[in-house]
Amino acid sequence: MSANWGKNIELSLFGESHGKAIGIVIGNLPAGVTLDFDSIKKDLSRRAPGKNRMSTARKEKDEVEIISGIVDGVTTGAPLVGLIYNSDQHSQDYSYLKELMRPGHSDYSAYEKYHGFNDVRGGGHFSGRLTAPIVFAGAIAKQILKEKGIYVGAHIQSIKDVYDDSFGVNITEEILEKLLLKQYPTINDDAFIKMQETIEEARMSQNSVGGTIECAIINVPAGIGNPFFDSIEAHLSQLLFSIPAVKSVSFGLGEKITELYGSEANDSYYYDGDKVKTKTNHNGGILGGISNGMPIVFKVGIKPTASISLKQETVNVKTKENATLEIRGRHDPCIVPRAIVVVEAMAALGILDMVRNDERFK
Amino acid sequence: MSANWGKNIELSLFGESHGKAIGIVIGNLPAGVTLDFDSIKKDLSRRAPGKNRMSTARKEKDEVEIISGIVDGVTTGAPLVGLIYNSDQHSQDYSYLKELMRPGHSDYSAYEKYHGFNDVRGGGHFSGRLTAPIVFAGAIAKQILKEKGIYVGAHIQSIKDVYDDSFGVNITEEILEKLLLKQYPTINDDAFIKMQETIEEARMSQNSVGGTIECAIINVPAGIGNPFFDSIEAHLSQLLFSIPAVKSVSFGLGEKITELYGSEANDSYYYDGDKVKTKTNHNGGILGGISNGMPIVFKVGIKPTASISLKQETVNVKTKENATLEIRGRHDPCIVPRAIVVVEAMAALGILDMVRNDERFK
Amino acid sequence: MSANWGKNIELSLFGESHGKAIGIVIGNLPAGVTLDFDSIKKDLSRRAPGKNRMSTARKEKDEVEIISGIVDGVTTGAPLVGLIYNSDQHSQDYSYLKELMRPGHSDYSAYEKYHGFNDVRGGGHFSGRLTAPIVFAGAIAKQILKEKGIYVGAHIQSIKDVYDDSFGVNITEEILEKLLLKQYPTINDDAFIKMQETIEEARMSQNSVGGTIECAIINVPAGIGNPFFDSIEAHLSQLLFSIPAVKSVSFGLGEKITELYGSEANDSYYYDGDKVKTKTNHNGGILGGISNGMPIVFKVGIKPTASISLKQETVNVKTKENATLEIRGRHDPCIVPRAIVVVEAMAALGILDMVRNDERFK
Amino acid sequence: MSANWGKNIELSLFGESHGKAIGIVIGNLPAGVTLDFDSIKKDLSRRAPGKNRMSTARKEKDEVEIISGIVDGVTTGAPLVGLIYNSDQHSQDYSYLKELMRPGHSDYSAYEKYHGFNDVRGGGHFSGRLTAPIVFAGAIAKQILKEKGIYVGAHIQSIKDVYDDSFGVNITEEILEKLLLKQYPTINDDAFIKMQETIEEARMSQNSVGGTIECAIINVPAGIGNPFFDSIEAHLSQLLFSIPAVKSVSFGLGEKITELYGSEANDSYYYDGDKVKTKTNHNGGILGGISNGMPIVFKVGIKPTASISLKQETVNVKTKENATLEIRGRHDPCIVPRAIVVVEAMAALGILDMVRNDERFK
Repeated sequence: MSANWGKNIELSLFGESHGKAIGIVIGNLPAGVTLDFDSIKKDLSRRAPGKNRMSTARKEKDEVEIISGIVDGVTTGAPLVGLIYNSDQHSQDYSYLKELMRPGHSDYSAYEKYHGFNDVRGGGHFSGRLTAPIVFAGAIAKQILKEKGIYVGAHIQSIKDVYDDSFGVNITEEILEKLLLKQYPTINDDAFIKMQETIEEARMSQNSVGGTIECAIINVPAGIGNPFFDSIEAHLSQLLFSIPAVKSVSFGLGEKITELYGSEANDSYYYDGDKVKTKTNHNGGILGGISNGMPIVFKVGIKPTASISLKQETVNVKTKENATLEIRGRHDPCIVPRAIVVVEAMAALGILDMVRNDERFK
Repeated sequence: MSANWGKNIELSLFGESHGKAIGIVIGNLPAGVTLDFDSIKKDLSRRAPGKNRMSTARKEKDEVEIISGIVDGVTTGAPLVGLIYNSDQHSQDYSYLKELMRPGHSDYSAYEKYHGFNDVRGGGHFSGRLTAPIVFAGAIAKQILKEKGIYVGAHIQSIKDVYDDSFGVNITEEILEKLLLKQYPTINDDAFIKMQETIEEARMSQNSVGGTIECAIINVPAGIGNPFFDSIEAHLSQLLFSIPAVKSVSFGLGEKITELYGSEANDSYYYDGDKVKTKTNHNGGILGGISNGMPIVFKVGIKPTASISLKQETVNVKTKENATLEIRGRHDPCIVPRAIVVVEAMAALGILDMVRNDERFK
Repeated sequence: MSANWGKNIELSLFGESHGKAIGIVIGNLPAGVTLDFDSIKKDLSRRAPGKNRMSTARKEKDEVEIISGIVDGVTTGAPLVGLIYNSDQHSQDYSYLKELMRPGHSDYSAYEKYHGFNDVRGGGHFSGRLTAPIVFAGAIAKQILKEKGIYVGAHIQSIKDVYDDSFGVNITEEILEKLLLKQYPTINDDAFIKMQETIEEARMSQNSVGGTIECAIINVPAGIGNPFFDSIEAHLSQLLFSIPAVKSVSFGLGEKITELYGSEANDSYYYDGDKVKTKTNHNGGILGGISNGMPIVFKVGIKPTASISLKQETVNVKTKENATLEIRGRHDPCIVPRAIVVVEAMAALGILDMVRNDERFK
Repeated sequence: MSANWGKNIELSLFGESHGKAIGIVIGNLPAGVTLDFDSIKKDLSRRAPGKNRMSTARKEKDEVEIISGIVDGVTTGAPLVGLIYNSDQHSQDYSYLKELMRPGHSDYSAYEKYHGFNDVRGGGHFSGRLTAPIVFAGAIAKQILKEKGIYVGAHIQSIKDVYDDSFGVNITEEILEKLLLKQYPTINDDAFIKMQETIEEARMSQNSVGGTIECAIINVPAGIGNPFFDSIEAHLSQLLFSIPAVKSVSFGLGEKITELYGSEANDSYYYDGDKVKTKTNHNGGILGGISNGMPIVFKVGIKPTASISLKQETVNVKTKENATLEIRGRHDPCIVPRAIVVVEAMAALGILDMVRNDERFK
């Protein structure tokens, strides 16, 4: 499915950057949840552009209007729909996008798929703006999980070649909440200063940089998930790779686990009181596709922003000739900080979908 | 879904290592395909253990009996079922696995999920042996793709910290076929010699190593795939993370793309005659979730074999005490070489599922 | 799935009668379709209430605003969303519906499912009003089918115990179009006069009546469909039983075929020129779940409108006592005439989903 | 999906009448269920042919071999596969079925779908024999439901124009169990005598007859199901229409409800102690797609056996000419008695899929 997703929680994502509105349908939510609108707003503002020099200067309003699924702020159990209206943007001329394919963007692959009928204005349905409704849905999912003691949090693991520390074995609610207080969450504060310089340097040279995000979901009980096609890894990766610009997803130590010996990679078990724990968490809380009770930890890699002001070589599909292209306007030199909350949202939606009907979650 | 998968091509994987048989249902195959049994056998033998010192000495017969879906070797269009019978294995005592949870294996997470009722003998349904039916299904998928000019191939990208070269921009049918001739496919032959030493050294120390596999699918036309939930990345990653021991999946340059500038990461377009190509293929042939006509390239990371002979610390879930464990028997010090054909199989099944009904594939 | 539906064409239906808006997401439509807004309006007006004495006097505006998926009236291939805003309806007091369960309505079963949190105003998400977005989606599906020569049409087969003639073997485009010209489509014009009397008599006695609708889909090529779980019957029935008040679905002669001998029920084949046809069409164009090239014919039974003004016996779930109930307001004494276009819509969506990617439809 | 089905309980049905074996994969069963093999055998024997003059004289062995998913008779939670081997049937010549399309069978529609590659021997994948694995799966589903107090049972409602009484409002476990004791379950014993005469008369005239089956599921708690696409009606009808020869499905009074007034069709509520009940059950226990706690009652119509010995008119698709056909061999003059347990099986699987993860079922 392309627009629709989900077995228990059902999503349907829609909208184009310069259409009337973008939004999401969230089906099969539990009835009787009093929505925490503050959390929703906070999460949307974490994704919103224009907050500071590190992100694009465009002002987009990410105010969600809920048009169904709640009465007096409480979920009814019917599909909940959040709409975000697009403001009028007559000014810009996007007609060149019908001919000149921006490198690194979906322009050419979408041109081939839709035979040129796709809405190219502002990226259309492929716009990063479509992640706003996902953040909205994720905020609701996080709230429902939180009420069961499950928390989701993330930090910037790297910007270009500047790396933060990693989550260790013990990830607590406090650690995750502390990250939320930082405008740009890193575990090591020094790391972010260097990251900021890297981003600023990219901006000054009309270029862009990418990075990685490490995310954790804590307090998922052992025994959630499945072998094979609906393993936690399979389930979450489908969602994480749905985020535009994500090119890698890994669990636990990720690729680094391939450089260890088996004796190092195997997380030893021990009893912490009644509870089975592992001394390390190189497998990211998942074995055989099923949770083992340790924090579920994964990392996503986000490529550098495709929109850059530098002149680029490309093709003109109308004239069938090689061409050059300079993309006008201001661009976000690094979307990683804004993507954190999107990654958290997908993680929350994916895990909620898996635990929603599990006896351990009731 | 856990046992079932697929929108067009439908899979249902079943079996336990020490049950009567393992197998797979493949639904919705085109009717009228004359199966190439040689290819099927060849692929199964690539996965089979016991070929040389690099893999486990156990002898498993991976002979597939097709019990439905063909008449006289030609597909009927009805679900095709391949069965692989398990040979009798009375000798070994697996009862200790009911109590002692092997680190790095699914033992504990499965114990929690199935409340101790799962078949623990030889790993049960979690056994790597379950990848044999996948290879069988993949061989059929590869054949159908091949008839449309689409080829799938892979090489060992790394074993522990020994790295092979990567596929470049131009990946031809010849390159992929040449890899098939090598018992252990690497692009750089020197690399494999070092890899072999690394594996041998792990075996001697009763330990194990992992590695990465790089896979390519060539000649997929531009315009296949979808934005968001059914992007090629989302679609393939669900299958790739269904392979036991896979902990990372990345497309194109993977995590390395996060260390580039946007100007480097964006693949420039140009016309090669009538055909639009990119000068580099850092995005692995996928933009916006949709193919751009370049080779689809991805990498999977496989953790070191969890079964090692070294003494390990663990828990006994019956006595609720900490314990130590020595796993008896011979173990594969590195499953990466055998996993190549499994990765190819999943890639072929995933892409066939996406192109099966596409007008460009007819 | 409850909110979402579909394998190729993807639907997500949302909204509550007294919320801000109701609507539908239609995913995976072909790009490049110039929408026929006249057909859409015409179909919506066929469903709309308040046209004459035979239906409810309430005035609902069924104007659809398309907020994504089109540019200049042409589909982009991105999810197309149609919204229908609900007008403000402050006047009525629905609080009694929180306590008194209307017989024949979903009140009690929904109360149990949603633990009382469902929106009860005007039926909430269970309102017949939710069929308006379905009609909208169906109108688009019909248009796409029509461009390939496939037509969908229906007539009132019965109102209470007054029966119209049935479609015969030969159902042409002309026959279906002629039905569209009638305000209340019956094959036999006399039948409708008696039906009208029956409905009027029900209205006068503050009661309601139901009926049946016979629907035909013509020019579906032979070979569409599947055995078992995705047979045409299975596929269409899932959609048809999604229409509120539908309690029976049958194909061809339906239940009447159970009173025939096999020699009568079997439709004899013959060649009409090159084309294989059957002399009768008792099986409704479907054998083994797959189309045989004859018109696909089916019938749905719609129960009498549950809302009646007569006093009814029920329970009060707050006081946990037996109670009586008189439902205020004007009610539609018979929804069958308005349901015709809803049945057509579901038929069109179901068949489009099945042929969408078939080589015979390209 | 055609081979696969299910959201919680996952099915994959496979096999051809004259292949090696037929069977079914049942995924996502709870672990720890001690299978009741007696019930399974009893149900299989209820479907088996050749028991008496009323059904075909062919002897088929319906012995199921379980090849995965159990250890010592207890479910492991891994996919459970039941195989039924086909005995060698060299004797008959089926080649005429490649050319002469049997009226009322899937021959022609399958010929078109599979371009002539489908296995025609004994009906291939379309054979009624494929219902044996469904009965096997259904027997397991019934056992799991029974442990939660939910019972499924059915009776012959009609054979041709001979009608049995209907289930009333109160359907108890005792009533359903009493039906199981009868070789051919009817409520009114006189009805069956006339049915037997009707079937015998059809046999003597080399013809066949059909009929209807009424099925009940009792003790499903109120609040199970969904509005729209996954209503209980939608969910069950998809399965019921997957049974070969089923041409109608209706709930509660079915089509007869269309002849009532609303005041009659609406089932009045009352308190029976603490429990809400309805005085009548014309809606078959389902309102708004959701259970109301009353017995879920539905009826399926089964067309007369398509295989008859009488000469029939048809076409020869090889010569492209009209032709006549006499089908050799003995045929079942009425499959309705054998279909009862198939209907029960589908009902059980459908309801188990819906309640599997519901808090009310735990």
